[in-house]
Amino acid sequence: MVAKNPKDSKTTITDLVLPSETNPIGNMFGGELLARMDRAASIAARRHSRRIVVTASVNHVAFNKMIPLGSVVTVEAKVSRAFKSSMEVYMDVWIEDRESGMRSKANEGIYIFVAVDEMGHPVPVPDLVPETDLEKERFDAALRRKQLSLVLAGKMAPKEATELKALFD
Amino acid sequence: MVAKNPKDSKTTITDLVLPSETNPIGNMFGGELLARMDRAASIAARRHSRRIVVTASVNHVAFNKMIPLGSVVTVEAKVSRAFKSSMEVYMDVWIEDRESGMRSKANEGIYIFVAVDEMGHPVPVPDLVPETDLEKERFDAALRRKQLSLVLAGKMAPKEATELKALFD
Amino acid sequence: MVAKNPKDSKTTITDLVLPSETNPIGNMFGGELLARMDRAASIAARRHSRRIVVTASVNHVAFNKMIPLGSVVTVEAKVSRAFKSSMEVYMDVWIEDRESGMRSKANEGIYIFVAVDEMGHPVPVPDLVPETDLEKERFDAALRRKQLSLVLAGKMAPKEATELKALFD
Amino acid sequence: MVAKNPKDSKTTITDLVLPSETNPIGNMFGGELLARMDRAASIAARRHSRRIVVTASVNHVAFNKMIPLGSVVTVEAKVSRAFKSSMEVYMDVWIEDRESGMRSKANEGIYIFVAVDEMGHPVPVPDLVPETDLEKERFDAALRRKQLSLVLAGKMAPKEATELKALFD
Amino acid sequence: MVAKNPKDSKTTITDLVLPSETNPIGNMFGGELLARMDRAASIAARRHSRRIVVTASVNHVAFNKMIPLGSVVTVEAKVSRAFKSSMEVYMDVWIEDRESGMRSKANEGIYIFVAVDEMGHPVPVPDLVPETDLEKERFDAALRRKQLSLVLAGKMAPKEATELKALFD
Amino acid sequence: MVAKNPKDSKTTITDLVLPSETNPIGNMFGGELLARMDRAASIAARRHSRRIVVTASVNHVAFNKMIPLGSVVTVEAKVSRAFKSSMEVYMDVWIEDRESGMRSKANEGIYIFVAVDEMGHPVPVPDLVPETDLEKERFDAALRRKQLSLVLAGKMAPKEATELKALFD
Repeated sequence: MVAKNPKDSKTTITDLVLPSETNPIGNMFGGELLARMDRAASIAARRHSRRIVVTASVNHVAFNKMIPLGSVVTVEAKVSRAFKSSMEVYMDVWIEDRESGMRSKANEGIYIFVAVDEMGHPVPVPDLVPETDLEKERFDAALRRKQLSLVLAGKMAPKEATELKALFD
Repeated sequence: MVAKNPKDSKTTITDLVLPSETNPIGNMFGGELLARMDRAASIAARRHSRRIVVTASVNHVAFNKMIPLGSVVTVEAKVSRAFKSSMEVYMDVWIEDRESGMRSKANEGIYIFVAVDEMGHPVPVPDLVPETDLEKERFDAALRRKQLSLVLAGKMAPKEATELKALFD
Repeated sequence: MVAKNPKDSKTTITDLVLPSETNPIGNMFGGELLARMDRAASIAARRHSRRIVVTASVNHVAFNKMIPLGSVVTVEAKVSRAFKSSMEVYMDVWIEDRESGMRSKANEGIYIFVAVDEMGHPVPVPDLVPETDLEKERFDAALRRKQLSLVLAGKMAPKEATELKALFD
Repeated sequence: MVAKNPKDSKTTITDLVLPSETNPIGNMFGGELLARMDRAASIAARRHSRRIVVTASVNHVAFNKMIPLGSVVTVEAKVSRAFKSSMEVYMDVWIEDRESGMRSKANEGIYIFVAVDEMGHPVPVPDLVPETDLEKERFDAALRRKQLSLVLAGKMAPKEATELKALFD
Repeated sequence: MVAKNPKDSKTTITDLVLPSETNPIGNMFGGELLARMDRAASIAARRHSRRIVVTASVNHVAFNKMIPLGSVVTVEAKVSRAFKSSMEVYMDVWIEDRESGMRSKANEGIYIFVAVDEMGHPVPVPDLVPETDLEKERFDAALRRKQLSLVLAGKMAPKEATELKALFD
Repeated sequence: MVAKNPKDSKTTITDLVLPSETNPIGNMFGGELLARMDRAASIAARRHSRRIVVTASVNHVAFNKMIPLGSVVTVEAKVSRAFKSSMEVYMDVWIEDRESGMRSKANEGIYIFVAVDEMGHPVPVPDLVPETDLEKERFDAALRRKQLSLVLAGKMAPKEATELKALFD
């Protein structure tokens, strides 16, 4: 399998926030944003692997900024690292000002997907080769995040999580 | 107001077709696609005008190809011509093959939006300057479409619709 | 096949506009109305043909009037002309005043449907015989609209579009 | 206030059953039908009273027949009796066969609405005068149903419920 | 089959009221509440019978109190009486005050479900043995409600409805 | 402020998986589950704090098991630790077998909420005192998770994250 770059899986959903997608105080409902991110991330994972993909976990989503009714919201998803059959997808969420057209970062999130065959068994995926500085930084951090998940799930001894452990030395 | 290019308003919604968005024979429900196109087109019109925009009409949407459940659908919207306070938005709808990654054209559509102020009164919008051959072709055809709408609505005498009339000479 | 009248396919959806169906400025969301029209029109086409029907195109929808939250909206669809296996469906959209009960026209729209068999192949549909003056007027205009579509799609030479051409002479 | 007939409030919602409106065994989800009936009934009550109306109770809904995915469902609502400020709305639900066009009765239901002013206080509504035999029968039964509700709620002594009591003598 | 108690089928849905679930005056839309009750009641009936269950009727739902946007609403469903293959499910609907945490009763409702096999034929369900005073009261009333349904449907002579008739003596 | 126990905020949503909530391969759509968890968690946080609460982050959600169409899914949320004005909410997701009634664990997830006043400024929340062994374990781990978030966000030096650091010694 030929390795791919993050740009090969880049997926963009630019959409409005309608009243049916708000919470009682008039901002975008958190669950709606989580669902849009799930849709964008699964398409990115599918573009990287060209396989059926299933959500394995949501690793982190930070809600830094309220997104008011009527906003234009862009979810941009790219695969940030590929493991054996799983892929980490990193997403940036932007909103843009109507009058100036300026975009500002609202949230970001990390989801993990697994590529499977028709029977649901995991299958290998191509490697990911990061290109930009930001992509490289996320690629490196993805390994620490994976080790952390394994440690927290009791599937890896903390002392074997070398990259992660180095943080605390 | 500084004129803009079609690329300045380019808006992309790439999304899945889930079961809740299908018709009884398992393809994307037409009304759902029309709604996604309305969302994409209104964002494009807003990016061109940086104003509040309202849908004035759907000029044409061709459903050339069924879009099956589970498809990845991309709606790509760009302003194709600006008039005094109205904008024609041209959309291409693509689906992509999971295994090969090839995109194929499924549908296309044309919506008209009007830019308004807070009171709902029409306000002028920037001119549009097409760049690519396809953009120029759509720009020219937009005028014929506008004349046609005026003729069909009885607001323009057929003989004054010079560009349109030329087609039949 | 016995010819039918427009009243044989008349389909009425009278429904409320709830908050989940509005846009950020508190009027009915355009995409929601387009979806309701698609539902009404497909039932009308099915009643005319008694076949499975699929949306072939949206020919025109004019949004003449905002429809505010809480309105009672009536979509009334009737087949306006039948061709070999396709049908033009004409829709009128009305809103009514709560206190006086008066109905006023808000929008109108034209959709095209094709009747198909179980395999998706087009099948013939009954002829349509218009009865009222309005139905006759729409029946005549439907032919010009069809010629126009063919001309614009490059499938008919402008000079062969006799009814349409006559408009410009 | 001038009395009205049931036909003055007649409200029709004819709509499809799409996959998003089904239950896990592929029939129309009960809750979806109850919601459509609530919409139709509230419009009928509003047409009779020309007032803001609120649902007071669902008196009875019988689900006699499964409604499969893809059905065309018609909910027909008419006010069946008016009391001081409340109205009983009787609904018939029909499905139609695509090939023969025959309609068959699927369900029926009875909802009660109250007309209120802007402050939410009950206001009087016009009398209802039934015309057809079926309307007269439902009009008479509505009184027994009202007495029954009052008896069951402990707001009327059974012996005062004369029309209802007569049933058991 | 071993008899069961109401607590064995107790089902709780505690959920928010979001803008997409409101009516035009900002309270929970009646149809949305009816749908949530249908979901809760069907789970309770399934837990009692461990069978596929289908909604047979909505017997009564009283809307005593408006439920404003942003409320926390609890629907609590328990089987109140089992007949041969049908079950009456009684539901209480509560809202709670954010500051004090106090719960107050908003509505209540009664639905009937039938247990069926894979072919849709009714199958027997376990008996229900009420435990608390309230459960016993609802259990007794359920028989009168059933007789009443049969009488109103013309399937039982009023004089045979002994429990119900006793009310009017 | 009086400290509270996890049971004081316990919130249960038991609900069906309908076709409108599935993905193209017939299991519950990940985004729908994330949205239900957001609803349950926000109610738990509100019950603990009796304040307006906003989602600050999704810390982790593991999708261990597919949840097929027609499942009965229970999301159970309890506050697992309170900080100054933020609360960690821990959720367990269960599905139950229709025939045996046995519950099995499908997923779990951790969300963070912040209590705010009417102006959106953070306000203090009561302490949380865990009672069961599982609650104590989650309470302790919550501190490590918080330190980890601060370290990853560059807001705490790794050496100050004493509880977390201890894991790797």
